[in-house]
Amino acid sequence: MFESLYQSFTDSADASQSAARLAALRAELKKHGIDGFIVPRADRHQNEYVPPSEERLAWLTGFTGSAGLAIALQDCAVLFVDGRYTIQVREQVDLKVVEPVALAATNPEKWLEGNLRAGAKLGYDPWLHTPGQIERYEKAVKAAGAELVAVEKNPIDTIWAERPQPPHGAVKRHPPKLAGESAKKKLARVTTALGKADALLISDPHAVAWVFNIRGQDVDHTPLPLAFVLITRDGSPRLYIEAAKLNSNVRAYLEEHTDIADPAALEDDLTRLGIETKRVLFDAATVPAKLTRLLKEAGGTADVGADPIALMKARKNPAELEGTRAAHLRDGIAIVRFLRWFSEEAAQGGLTEIAAAQALETFRRETGLLKDVSFPTISAAGPNSAIPHYRVTEATNRKIKRGIFLVDSGAQYEDGTTDITRTLAVGAPTQEMRDRFTRVLKGHIAIARALFPQGTSGAQIDAFARLPLWQAGLDFDHGTGHGVGSYLSVHEGPQRISKLSNVALEPGMILSNEPGYYKAGHFGIRIENLVVVTPIKIKGAERDMLGFETITYAPIDLTLVEPKLLDRNEIAWLDAYHAKVRKLISSHLDPGEREWLKQATQPINNAKPAKRRKGKHGRH
Amino acid sequence: MFESLYQSFTDSADASQSAARLAALRAELKKHGIDGFIVPRADRHQNEYVPPSEERLAWLTGFTGSAGLAIALQDCAVLFVDGRYTIQVREQVDLKVVEPVALAATNPEKWLEGNLRAGAKLGYDPWLHTPGQIERYEKAVKAAGAELVAVEKNPIDTIWAERPQPPHGAVKRHPPKLAGESAKKKLARVTTALGKADALLISDPHAVAWVFNIRGQDVDHTPLPLAFVLITRDGSPRLYIEAAKLNSNVRAYLEEHTDIADPAALEDDLTRLGIETKRVLFDAATVPAKLTRLLKEAGGTADVGADPIALMKARKNPAELEGTRAAHLRDGIAIVRFLRWFSEEAAQGGLTEIAAAQALETFRRETGLLKDVSFPTISAAGPNSAIPHYRVTEATNRKIKRGIFLVDSGAQYEDGTTDITRTLAVGAPTQEMRDRFTRVLKGHIAIARALFPQGTSGAQIDAFARLPLWQAGLDFDHGTGHGVGSYLSVHEGPQRISKLSNVALEPGMILSNEPGYYKAGHFGIRIENLVVVTPIKIKGAERDMLGFETITYAPIDLTLVEPKLLDRNEIAWLDAYHAKVRKLISSHLDPGEREWLKQATQPINNAKPAKRRKGKHGRH
Repeated sequence: MFESLYQSFTDSADASQSAARLAALRAELKKHGIDGFIVPRADRHQNEYVPPSEERLAWLTGFTGSAGLAIALQDCAVLFVDGRYTIQVREQVDLKVVEPVALAATNPEKWLEGNLRAGAKLGYDPWLHTPGQIERYEKAVKAAGAELVAVEKNPIDTIWAERPQPPHGAVKRHPPKLAGESAKKKLARVTTALGKADALLISDPHAVAWVFNIRGQDVDHTPLPLAFVLITRDGSPRLYIEAAKLNSNVRAYLEEHTDIADPAALEDDLTRLGIETKRVLFDAATVPAKLTRLLKEAGGTADVGADPIALMKARKNPAELEGTRAAHLRDGIAIVRFLRWFSEEAAQGGLTEIAAAQALETFRRETGLLKDVSFPTISAAGPNSAIPHYRVTEATNRKIKRGIFLVDSGAQYEDGTTDITRTLAVGAPTQEMRDRFTRVLKGHIAIARALFPQGTSGAQIDAFARLPLWQAGLDFDHGTGHGVGSYLSVHEGPQRISKLSNVALEPGMILSNEPGYYKAGHFGIRIENLVVVTPIKIKGAERDMLGFETITYAPIDLTLVEPKLLDRNEIAWLDAYHAKVRKLISSHLDPGEREWLKQATQPINNAKPAKRRKGKHGRH
Repeated sequence: MFESLYQSFTDSADASQSAARLAALRAELKKHGIDGFIVPRADRHQNEYVPPSEERLAWLTGFTGSAGLAIALQDCAVLFVDGRYTIQVREQVDLKVVEPVALAATNPEKWLEGNLRAGAKLGYDPWLHTPGQIERYEKAVKAAGAELVAVEKNPIDTIWAERPQPPHGAVKRHPPKLAGESAKKKLARVTTALGKADALLISDPHAVAWVFNIRGQDVDHTPLPLAFVLITRDGSPRLYIEAAKLNSNVRAYLEEHTDIADPAALEDDLTRLGIETKRVLFDAATVPAKLTRLLKEAGGTADVGADPIALMKARKNPAELEGTRAAHLRDGIAIVRFLRWFSEEAAQGGLTEIAAAQALETFRRETGLLKDVSFPTISAAGPNSAIPHYRVTEATNRKIKRGIFLVDSGAQYEDGTTDITRTLAVGAPTQEMRDRFTRVLKGHIAIARALFPQGTSGAQIDAFARLPLWQAGLDFDHGTGHGVGSYLSVHEGPQRISKLSNVALEPGMILSNEPGYYKAGHFGIRIENLVVVTPIKIKGAERDMLGFETITYAPIDLTLVEPKLLDRNEIAWLDAYHAKVRKLISSHLDPGEREWLKQATQPINNAKPAKRRKGKHGRH
């Protein structure tokens, strides 16, 4: 029987207490002479997935989306959400006490400028915002003639009677064979990156995990140890982590590289650096405003900018790449088994989105090596597939019927993180679906085949994925690709393929290649493989050239492909890709699966003999 | 006989006086207790072409490039130049007294930080730098423990005995039929764009010309009136211009729209606005630091940002577009006559780069409507064509022999500004030349045929022009396209097609489409047409789509085209383009020219019958 262990399809959202909780919050604020409070969906590290103890926004408002920010004043409460959540938020919150606001319409700063009364005091928890965020709020609050006040203790924690304990997930070593570089060498590289600064505070737990070759269990779907690290030019590094997370083996390993201190010691240490007028680097994306302020108020200089570790972590070494290839082969086998199962089950009717997601997780678990899913599976039938960030729950669960089924999922294995989307036809697809699918495929192939000189950014090649859609007056409203970690986050920076990413693509970076098309209320399409940036030798080249190695191995649904729209290079790519999938995966399947894969990966002009292109230039 | 009236091929560079002039400058600085001085190649409006009275850098150092910056200290003088001028600068300056520095190696800020002695006073003329430039210098000078000092009078003007008079070019009205919108309407739009500000200072003379529908004669190649304008929310606009530039007709016309004041009055007016604590908008790209400082020191607020007029001016109205199409047709006739002449002359040998440039200007003058060339013609034979910004002088003038000849030129007509590059084979080109030319052509066609949704920036489509080169490991090191004015500058912002341009392309914008390829020391290729951003209707489109209308009409040299490298869409574009050139231009030619044009524009598969592609899919 299929089941899911790493994801749930119930929604813990409960807005029935919102009115009472908001009243309690307001009473608590009044005690401290504060008129309002900012409640972000954030923990102390700006994590994508936060532990239950940090779900203050959901506790207060009932809203369970992955991004949002509430502002509670004495007479109103608003909740800002982005385009993904404008519908969900209205279903989850108590509209009598919380007013949802679309970020497309306004933003918190503008809202504060217009709604905050002169003289009001607006509170915030300085652990839960970055200095950049606070700078923007401060400007807006000042423009309203009001005052922004950092609280000492988060008032929600005071009134939240049954707040869960903070997580104490056991830390494990990441095997040296998979890490490919020792913590000692990584620390030496990080110390060199200090430049003119005296110290670096690592506030991103992904960077903590990377630098010490450890993994944790503090949040869902990403093996993060929640912790801070202070790297100083002269002294030993210092890791601030709850002692309960370290067994004696791990502690002994870590003590070879670092002091270990209680998280509470961090404030004193930064204050001391401040008194010594030191210059400390902070990661603008994750550092709490609390910490930069401590340093500055004590007399130090806070250099808030890009985390130098992000780029080191993004460039995977050969051991990490070998690991990710093995993980993708393993994942590909599970996916192929799932696809074959799906092709048989879906035809019979009765399958639901949740059942499909449970089956997929089960096939992955049967590899024996699954640690977690890398994010909750997007299992989307029919109109749900047109919602790019759809998450299935018992309430939204659809029967899978004739039409489109889109499944976007990923796995965490110790040797690598995967992320793959396949769009499948259930029954015969319409001509429109085939046209759109083939245009998305052309974009996908354009990225897969792209060649570009060293120094090229994701912004420069993003439109390659869009041009076939643009030619028909169509587009999609998300980036073409995001970075992916090595048994870390499935969303990793700084590399991206998006119109706004000026970061140069460098050898060893892993990215997704996932153009799509969405017809709201009808159907959606996305084709996603992961790729590795790779040096490419070209005869006669005058520049150092790069390209992509596709590392995701699973068939692309040929019933959705319109061969007439493909040129010979595109057909050659698709046939070669499918031949490689077959070659790598077949021997790991049972005979029935193997036969199905053979059918699913046959060359394009064999697959559609009735639609064979005129002339002979297709595959010669 | 051919001659050029609007460009010279002699180089006024003369470094023989540099040592004496530098000594005089140092003596003058000493009198005022200053230890060094920054000498930019700039006037008070950051113009691309500056009047002779502003050529302080050339006077001091002998360097005549279009961009550069010298810093003279008491014991040394350095001259920063970009990659275009690293060779030229060493030939022009007296290396005993001026040390050229490549901007690729360091920049003025870093150099100052490393070379300025603590306690030194570095002078600058606040009229010749923008506030942003001064901010950067100030940071560097402060880091060196030195001081940046604004001078009251430029010390070079004091010692420059025979400094030319500032220009007093007569201002003319730009005909309403060509402008397409009255100054009254434009002023109303500009006033609306003030937002929360009380006033806008127009410091860019292109914007002055645009807003009042006037043109001037103060600099070469661009019909600019050097002037400032102050637009206030309540009062009448005020134009600060030398009275000598206005005849009574023009003055009467202008007085319908604006007060007219002496340039000297501007400082007092800004001071008064400061005293009244007004907020004034300034154009970050052109405003002198002198003026923002005046306002701020008097108590006002300087809002230094993007000039709101730049975008209004960039979106050409229907009258301007009609004008530019007429100008391009006229220019195309001159170009075709030149190309035919060239094809006959070059074959006989003996032709030089200068002779070709003179002939081209003459064919343009024979239209009877040429006002100026829009920039000095790049007439480049053989290895000179590999220098993207080559400018021919008597010293560099090459005989045009077998190989590549590249000519990049433009015209100023009252109804429009043109800019076109053609690369021509003299004798039979090599296979390498044909391969490179065809790849550049494929990039050119990719831009010409591009379709993209509203909101797309030049950065997003720039790589379309590069992909065919990237596929062979090649690239070019300049942007793909720049904005072009309407009887104004041939280089106009903010729109560009370049990896760094995040400005959305909007209907009515004119841009160049000019990918290239340069093999240093051997040959260079560039194919340039101008294009207009145009709404495109596509059946079934879900987005508002844009594309380009190509408005330059002249044949592309088919002897350099390798048809095997073109796909059917590219061949169709090239054939249709040539058919349009023939249709528009033929009736304006004499019979010999007409026959030549017919040959030069025949369909690609007729042009190369021996190389006809296999199969029938080429043109059907």
